[in-house]
Amino acid sequence: MRAVTYELIANDSSSRARLGRVHTPHGVFDTPAFMPVGTQGTLKGILPDQIAATGSQCILANTYHLMLRPGEKVVAELGDLHRFMAWPGPILTDSGGFQVFSLADLNKITDDGVTFRSHIDGSVVHLTPARSMQVQNDLGADIIMAFDECPPSLAPVEYQVTAVERTLRWARLCIEAHARPAEQALFGIVQGGTHQELRERCAAELIDMDFPGYAIGGLAVGEGFDAMKAVLGFVTPLLPVDRPRYLMGVGYPRDLVAAVRAGVDMFDCVLPTRNGRNAYAFTASGAIRLRNAKYQRDSGPIEEGCDCYACRHFTRGAIRHYFFASEMLGPVLVSVHNVRFYQRFMADIRRAIAGGVFEQFYRSDPRCSLGPSEEGSEVRVQGSEKAPPFPPEP
Amino acid sequence: MRAVTYELIANDSSSRARLGRVHTPHGVFDTPAFMPVGTQGTLKGILPDQIAATGSQCILANTYHLMLRPGEKVVAELGDLHRFMAWPGPILTDSGGFQVFSLADLNKITDDGVTFRSHIDGSVVHLTPARSMQVQNDLGADIIMAFDECPPSLAPVEYQVTAVERTLRWARLCIEAHARPAEQALFGIVQGGTHQELRERCAAELIDMDFPGYAIGGLAVGEGFDAMKAVLGFVTPLLPVDRPRYLMGVGYPRDLVAAVRAGVDMFDCVLPTRNGRNAYAFTASGAIRLRNAKYQRDSGPIEEGCDCYACRHFTRGAIRHYFFASEMLGPVLVSVHNVRFYQRFMADIRRAIAGGVFEQFYRSDPRCSLGPSEEGSEVRVQGSEKAPPFPPEP
Repeated sequence: MRAVTYELIANDSSSRARLGRVHTPHGVFDTPAFMPVGTQGTLKGILPDQIAATGSQCILANTYHLMLRPGEKVVAELGDLHRFMAWPGPILTDSGGFQVFSLADLNKITDDGVTFRSHIDGSVVHLTPARSMQVQNDLGADIIMAFDECPPSLAPVEYQVTAVERTLRWARLCIEAHARPAEQALFGIVQGGTHQELRERCAAELIDMDFPGYAIGGLAVGEGFDAMKAVLGFVTPLLPVDRPRYLMGVGYPRDLVAAVRAGVDMFDCVLPTRNGRNAYAFTASGAIRLRNAKYQRDSGPIEEGCDCYACRHFTRGAIRHYFFASEMLGPVLVSVHNVRFYQRFMADIRRAIAGGVFEQFYRSDPRCSLGPSEEGSEVRVQGSEKAPPFPPEP
Repeated sequence: MRAVTYELIANDSSSRARLGRVHTPHGVFDTPAFMPVGTQGTLKGILPDQIAATGSQCILANTYHLMLRPGEKVVAELGDLHRFMAWPGPILTDSGGFQVFSLADLNKITDDGVTFRSHIDGSVVHLTPARSMQVQNDLGADIIMAFDECPPSLAPVEYQVTAVERTLRWARLCIEAHARPAEQALFGIVQGGTHQELRERCAAELIDMDFPGYAIGGLAVGEGFDAMKAVLGFVTPLLPVDRPRYLMGVGYPRDLVAAVRAGVDMFDCVLPTRNGRNAYAFTASGAIRLRNAKYQRDSGPIEEGCDCYACRHFTRGAIRHYFFASEMLGPVLVSVHNVRFYQRFMADIRRAIAGGVFEQFYRSDPRCSLGPSEEGSEVRVQGSEKAPPFPPEP
């Protein structure tokens, strides 16, 4: 018996989009699914009841941050990550690798693993496939991720080859080290940059290892929207139809819906919460910045017709004031709105697939074209709530 | 018809404690009542649903802060303070005077009012009784306060006399300037320091002016617990039994229950929220500091048996982690707990009065002796969430 299983409900007739459900030891979530990111064991500023009220069913936490502080043993002694975060539903943890590559002061990558200095106290830490598994076993999430190497998009092909080889070798070591396969599902991660041959090789070998789910890594790291779509176009058909497919660290609404169209089931991204803390709110007609002077006396909600807690109770004018007065409620309210915006979008995507009108939805719903805008411009970024993005393309 | 009326339900047989209800245009609150402080138009970090879940029925906001930012006209255009704070229940605003005296760069006090520099942008602002009324009329709280002068406890008696004279003259000017008496109840404030004769004179003249409620000001400004009790002992019997009595800026649980015993009905204080933000949690056995190392692996709630959101969902260990990781949820959760602690204490006080066992409650409940402690030591302070306290007694 697998810890996590995928139930396929419907295939879209005009694309590879699919409707499903993922069953985990802590409950079920509907796919395509968006998972908000609770880096340090909390969605910043949002109580679990409010997270649930946004329609979020599965949330993500970052292994790198939690292993450094408070330490995975502390979390385990307090009763596992579900108890720690007061989130009784499904949780996914990443492997820690991405943050090591992007956030830590990286000393060395070898075929064994990586050595780095903690961003908290400068101490030297060694992270290997076995250590990542041990930490994730102690944290106790329902879905855990293989320790992989994710090179920047501009890395030369030779480095992409090395990274795929390491990713495959480490995937085998992760399977060996994973101590709780009946309670936690370990997902493999397909790497290979934008190179079709590399991606195919990586996917084929991972599928031989029979993971209960597959992630597509190494996207949303600067390659651009069209390159991402191209990679998804040849990667998702390689993946088994009876396992969930997870595109890591993506992204804007237009990225999510394009990936759904290519057959992806699961997403995570820091955008709704990080943009929320910076007063950027998602709306169907584009991002708005609530610090803007024009909202000072605006008695409307963040987004007309939105059913989130912030929009049902607070005016744009009050929220703007909270940002200027450094009140926590500013970041809290816009984060709540943004997560609800994302979850309503995902629910509408699922409804469109169920109703056989996904292609129509994709072509007509204005949210499907929301990407980085001038007003709301933030680079897309994988990973955790504090990780700096990879350098943008030159 | 008065905007606000007091309904007396029961008098305690062994003390001057009384059980009642205050009726306002935005609903009823039970007394003795504790009002948490939402200085800048929000209880820091706490959404209105969570405030209501603590049992809070009436909340306070600070005129000084709101007139400077976002400005009372902005609040009025957004639909008044209830809409602004998303708090449909009763609200009380102070006059702004206390913050001017304690927080602003004070230039001049004359018989007309005070001139000061804004702590936000340094601009020169003039605050008078008429201006305080206009601002409070625009904000639209259910209970508004007369503009008074509150001298430090160490001020010489001559200055206390001047302050009482100004307070009385300003009280008359406030009544004249108050433009919405049918919708907002203006409370008078009894000053006079620790001088019985001055307090009696001030109370008598204010009662002649027939306010719908009376506050006792100039306490919790450094005079000490025994002096406070002594002043309450001779002031509350002077006040009309059919009007609510409000002790401003007080305090620790022991202060509240002692004042209830002297016949006070209403309280406000920043302690539960400010201490909460600093990781100090109130418990029946004393204050605890959740940053303490001993809580790192503590899987219990902040306080055993507490029914607040934080205690029902989170461990001490997780909350401690949130403080060290600078996560908003640390301050949020301990603030929620502390406000709930206060409200449960008030509910138990009311129940004890209703059941005729208040004196027994006062003598046996451990919360009735909770004052400033070594672990949780913070000076008592009136006013707003950011005001520095008056200098402590030498």
